[in-house]
Amino acid sequence: MSLLTTNTALVGRVTVAVDAMGGDFAPQATVIAALESLKRNEALSIILVGDQSKLEALLYLNFDKNTPLSGDMPIVSEVPDNPPLAPHLKTLFTAYKESGRLIIHHAPDVVLMSDRPSRALRRKQNSSMAIALQLVKDGVAGGCVSAGNTGALMLLGRSILGMCPGIDRPAITKKLPAPKGSCYVLDLGANVDSTAEHLYQFGLMGSILVETLEGIDKPRVALINVGEEEIKGSEQVRLASSMLVECDGINYVGYIEGSDLFNDVADVVVCDGFVGNIALKTGEGVAKLLYQSLFRIFEAHWYTRILGKLVIPLFRRLLKKIDPAKHNGALFIGLQGVVVKSHGNADAEAFSCAIDQAFNEVERKVPDMINSRLDELLF
Amino acid sequence: MSLLTTNTALVGRVTVAVDAMGGDFAPQATVIAALESLKRNEALSIILVGDQSKLEALLYLNFDKNTPLSGDMPIVSEVPDNPPLAPHLKTLFTAYKESGRLIIHHAPDVVLMSDRPSRALRRKQNSSMAIALQLVKDGVAGGCVSAGNTGALMLLGRSILGMCPGIDRPAITKKLPAPKGSCYVLDLGANVDSTAEHLYQFGLMGSILVETLEGIDKPRVALINVGEEEIKGSEQVRLASSMLVECDGINYVGYIEGSDLFNDVADVVVCDGFVGNIALKTGEGVAKLLYQSLFRIFEAHWYTRILGKLVIPLFRRLLKKIDPAKHNGALFIGLQGVVVKSHGNADAEAFSCAIDQAFNEVERKVPDMINSRLDELLF
Repeated sequence: MSLLTTNTALVGRVTVAVDAMGGDFAPQATVIAALESLKRNEALSIILVGDQSKLEALLYLNFDKNTPLSGDMPIVSEVPDNPPLAPHLKTLFTAYKESGRLIIHHAPDVVLMSDRPSRALRRKQNSSMAIALQLVKDGVAGGCVSAGNTGALMLLGRSILGMCPGIDRPAITKKLPAPKGSCYVLDLGANVDSTAEHLYQFGLMGSILVETLEGIDKPRVALINVGEEEIKGSEQVRLASSMLVECDGINYVGYIEGSDLFNDVADVVVCDGFVGNIALKTGEGVAKLLYQSLFRIFEAHWYTRILGKLVIPLFRRLLKKIDPAKHNGALFIGLQGVVVKSHGNADAEAFSCAIDQAFNEVERKVPDMINSRLDELLF
Repeated sequence: MSLLTTNTALVGRVTVAVDAMGGDFAPQATVIAALESLKRNEALSIILVGDQSKLEALLYLNFDKNTPLSGDMPIVSEVPDNPPLAPHLKTLFTAYKESGRLIIHHAPDVVLMSDRPSRALRRKQNSSMAIALQLVKDGVAGGCVSAGNTGALMLLGRSILGMCPGIDRPAITKKLPAPKGSCYVLDLGANVDSTAEHLYQFGLMGSILVETLEGIDKPRVALINVGEEEIKGSEQVRLASSMLVECDGINYVGYIEGSDLFNDVADVVVCDGFVGNIALKTGEGVAKLLYQSLFRIFEAHWYTRILGKLVIPLFRRLLKKIDPAKHNGALFIGLQGVVVKSHGNADAEAFSCAIDQAFNEVERKVPDMINSRLDELLF
């Protein structure tokens, strides 16, 4: 740890600890993503946390797995599943390492996707995920990013970082991409069976988050509910609504429906994690389905294929603007530190977005803001 | 009632009772929809249930609201908000009335969107909604359709028609439009806070429904849940899963995520009504957003406008195939009778789809099938 704290390249920069071993395409995708983010943000330093030999092997191994390993390669326990880096990325990797903006921090263990969160908590304190969190706790890194096991990240995060006072459970949130008036939805899956009190706390945290990250004064906070004319929601939702109504510090605007998520009627949308997760994934499913159908339209005839060639580039711009994959990176809030969760199947480009999110949150001191504003609102 | 039961035009036909006063555009949209459905289905008869004077006024009033009312108009309490029918529709209306395939059945009262369901149950037994349900109960109509208050429709439906034995609560379901492998999702909002037992019953009913309506043998039944690697769902969902695993009569395939709804992995997807409602409406919101964005793409330049003119007709075909509005009509299942709920803001075309759904369900004797198959599965 002392090596890290005396590193001069970290001074005056935002340092993000990256769980280099988490996600379907780790460590290759996480390493390339780190290089991309370092290129984009001059004020960023990254600590890659993971199996040192595997990470360094990315630099030394040749493209062809079958080629005999060269003499200057460190001893690795096994050849990584992902091919090593392209030559220009190897050069970049080496340069950032030498400048001190990219540091490899060894972690002997990995949290598996199949690990039960409670097992990870007991047994995986030496995992890349746990050590990345510990670097945040120790103040070496400002925040961390992982594409690994969500449940484990939540439990380890709670245990290592602790909670903001007045908050019972962390929530996962992200900004829903929309052409205008996008909103943050929370919770997106950290909690199932949220009580009214939890929903209320999500509302408070969401409001502070959006104020801090987006610079919106008095963001509109809404609760998601079933249609007006239906039996209006569960006991918990109605109770949470009455608690939010009575809270002077936030701008509660009442119930909204799922279809209103894209209608610029709220900046913060509160729901239980089960509901939020299913809604988000259904929305992503619809978007994917529509794009596939659109592209298929142009395959029908020779003239539609020509039309397609002209039109598809226009679509791609739209796709980039609203495709959830390009907005990868969900924020765990309520923890005493910045923790960003990437999609497990994020590629390097998407994972790099998640690193940028962490950078942004650290720079804007989100946990400090949540702590101090909660103090005003709750105590 | 005797007039209806002796009507020879009803014999050998499927009769659907239409709540002519329910929905945002009633009675004009409901009446036009009835005419459309009658035109499409030779084997259909319709009983329009509603304020007789208002319904007949559609025939007699002139287009211009300000024109003095003509002498042959019946006395109406007030001029309807919607303009009366176009001349060719008036002709059609008269012709179907004379043939006996379209009958007006007077109902003095209306359930308002703002009515609490419990109030509708106590006070609105003479509403168009309640009388339409009563016509089903009495065997005069095979099924009914309403675009009115969903909660009231559920409570009145339970009270007037009763439940299938072994089923505690009705569920709302509909087929999610997809290019291939579409599935029925239930519940979509009739029940919030469903227990494991309720979810289990939804699975049974959904399986029988899809077998009957779609002719799929042993439909794949799935439970919706949060991602594999997350804390896997609520207590209820896990308990419902273990109940479904143990049921030999249905083909339970386990958990799916929101994004799998369009991946042809299940024919029946079970969830709590709160979750289903929010997921469906979020999906609709995404679809609408994408279409609006697509159309906007072409507005940018003169050459993209020309491209748009060529491409948009291709889109419209896709839109027609998967736009939820064109698949209007959700089924209330678990009741002893066919009840179809239309979107409140359905126009005539969409409402007509809901009538067709009821026609289809009655023709395939869905409630009888559910009763007899439940008897095999449960008792």
